[in-house]
Amino acid sequence: MNRTLIAILKILAKENKIIGSKEIAKKLKMYGVNLSERTVRYHLKILDEKGLTKVFGKEGRVITEKGRQELETVSTVEKVGFIINKIETLSYLSDFDINSCKGKIIVNLSYIPKSKLKKALKSMENVFNSSLVMSNRILFIEKDDETVIVPDDHVCIGTICSVTLNAILLKHGIPVISRFGGVLEIRDGQPYRFNALISYDGTSLDPLEIFIRGKMTDVSGAIKNGYGRVLASFREIPTVCLNKVKEIYAIMQDKGFQGILMFGEPNQSLLDIPVGIDRVGIIVVGGLNPIAAVEESGIQTYTSAISTLCDYQAMIDFKELNETVK
Amino acid sequence: MNRTLIAILKILAKENKIIGSKEIAKKLKMYGVNLSERTVRYHLKILDEKGLTKVFGKEGRVITEKGRQELETVSTVEKVGFIINKIETLSYLSDFDINSCKGKIIVNLSYIPKSKLKKALKSMENVFNSSLVMSNRILFIEKDDETVIVPDDHVCIGTICSVTLNAILLKHGIPVISRFGGVLEIRDGQPYRFNALISYDGTSLDPLEIFIRGKMTDVSGAIKNGYGRVLASFREIPTVCLNKVKEIYAIMQDKGFQGILMFGEPNQSLLDIPVGIDRVGIIVVGGLNPIAAVEESGIQTYTSAISTLCDYQAMIDFKELNETVK
Repeated sequence: MNRTLIAILKILAKENKIIGSKEIAKKLKMYGVNLSERTVRYHLKILDEKGLTKVFGKEGRVITEKGRQELETVSTVEKVGFIINKIETLSYLSDFDINSCKGKIIVNLSYIPKSKLKKALKSMENVFNSSLVMSNRILFIEKDDETVIVPDDHVCIGTICSVTLNAILLKHGIPVISRFGGVLEIRDGQPYRFNALISYDGTSLDPLEIFIRGKMTDVSGAIKNGYGRVLASFREIPTVCLNKVKEIYAIMQDKGFQGILMFGEPNQSLLDIPVGIDRVGIIVVGGLNPIAAVEESGIQTYTSAISTLCDYQAMIDFKELNETVK
Repeated sequence: MNRTLIAILKILAKENKIIGSKEIAKKLKMYGVNLSERTVRYHLKILDEKGLTKVFGKEGRVITEKGRQELETVSTVEKVGFIINKIETLSYLSDFDINSCKGKIIVNLSYIPKSKLKKALKSMENVFNSSLVMSNRILFIEKDDETVIVPDDHVCIGTICSVTLNAILLKHGIPVISRFGGVLEIRDGQPYRFNALISYDGTSLDPLEIFIRGKMTDVSGAIKNGYGRVLASFREIPTVCLNKVKEIYAIMQDKGFQGILMFGEPNQSLLDIPVGIDRVGIIVVGGLNPIAAVEESGIQTYTSAISTLCDYQAMIDFKELNETVK
């Protein structure tokens, strides 16, 4: 499968209706592919032969189920550096306004077996009362909706992803450079050092998902007695923006957000991690810390980090959810 | 703990004898730290107070057990980019000569419960008969030796790490650029595409260990019916070396080595992964494929990839080991 064939499949999957070679040729330009209608038809025939597309009407095509499956595990290259791309795309697409608290924010989605929900909520309770989450709001979905499919006997929980911070700052013209996802060791209640780091621009898997799966966290310990290992990320902001970031962060805190564990000094290493020239390092909590605590309690979840956009107003206070389920 | 204190601890740990502040000051230069004897003494006092070092004689110091523990989980920065550093260090330190087959090669160490050894060997058998390993030689250690500590009720198995290829080529003046560790999808017996990639220079954890822990492989499937997911890495060599690499690889094959699954073309993407200017991509098997198969069969191992150097002559044919244990 070459890039052109994949791009055509993507267009058909996205449009989700019958379209002709002329329209496909036009849309292909967005993927950096310049082809004549005639050449598009040639490629469509190849896709037909592979059973990935199928003729509909005279010149129209639709994608087949097999075509969709093919797309799902598509091309590696697109996955290299994928996490940083996901961060940048969702930061841009979020339209959350911190002053009115309206708009879409970025969430991580986790699926938890219904039978384990009570126990899971119990494990998350202390995390939501701590400084290790972005906010005490949570998304709770019991049945499929437009954006989320919930498997049988499961519920879906959405935690606010810390990339939301990037999105809010970006709306104020401040670019945040996301560098590493890591496991942050907490000693005596304070960030002590990173035990593991994975660069966002060199991995196709989300670093925080890797750390949870690898059972490398001890979020419960960090909360219970101040010694443990939590999910966190290392980011940088241009020095010139530092005061503005602190101002906006103060507004965020007013509105019930938190998440920045440490601000560094301009041009100085933070927890031994060097920063770029004229930049300041910041350490931000991982939005998945509650889910890490759930996994620590022996409940297996299926998690997709930096997953999707969700209306902030649809989220509820964790306490409220906890009361309802009780 | 700042860099200076850590550097002093490292020197004391490495020397493993009583040394004075003068000698420490001299050795610190290697770590990029320039200090007077007097200042070194000041730092040593801080370490004494923390219980990390202890006075011996008039001016001498030794590292304490607590000091060693502190070093074990040392400084993050040293872990960022750690895997690529490990690759480069061991490639340089290996003195294996392909013509005489003498010297030290690089191995991955895995610890397997003794009670599961027979089953584990069974799972590895087909992998060692396939093209998915570097060689059919294996290291088998039942009791602690100079370099390896074997936990009770376990045995240690060493598989040849694919970084050995880098080491052999480096001895011939050919630099290999290790870019990604990945999960390679096999279709119809052939490499099809990477399903996941992690860059060696942006992770403190070994990518292949991550993929094994994350249960992302299906080595057994790849061997049984030609469809599966195996560990592999993406590397680059300068185009000017291509013929020489093929020559040396032919010698390696004569001597019972293998491991290069694909050679790319100069300046051309290989399995959709672009290469640097005037470079050729190569795809190399992961030395841990046999261990991935063991994990797939439900046996948990503890594995340390790109772990240590070991005398090639101490390794035995997998078949021989299999016969002995039977």
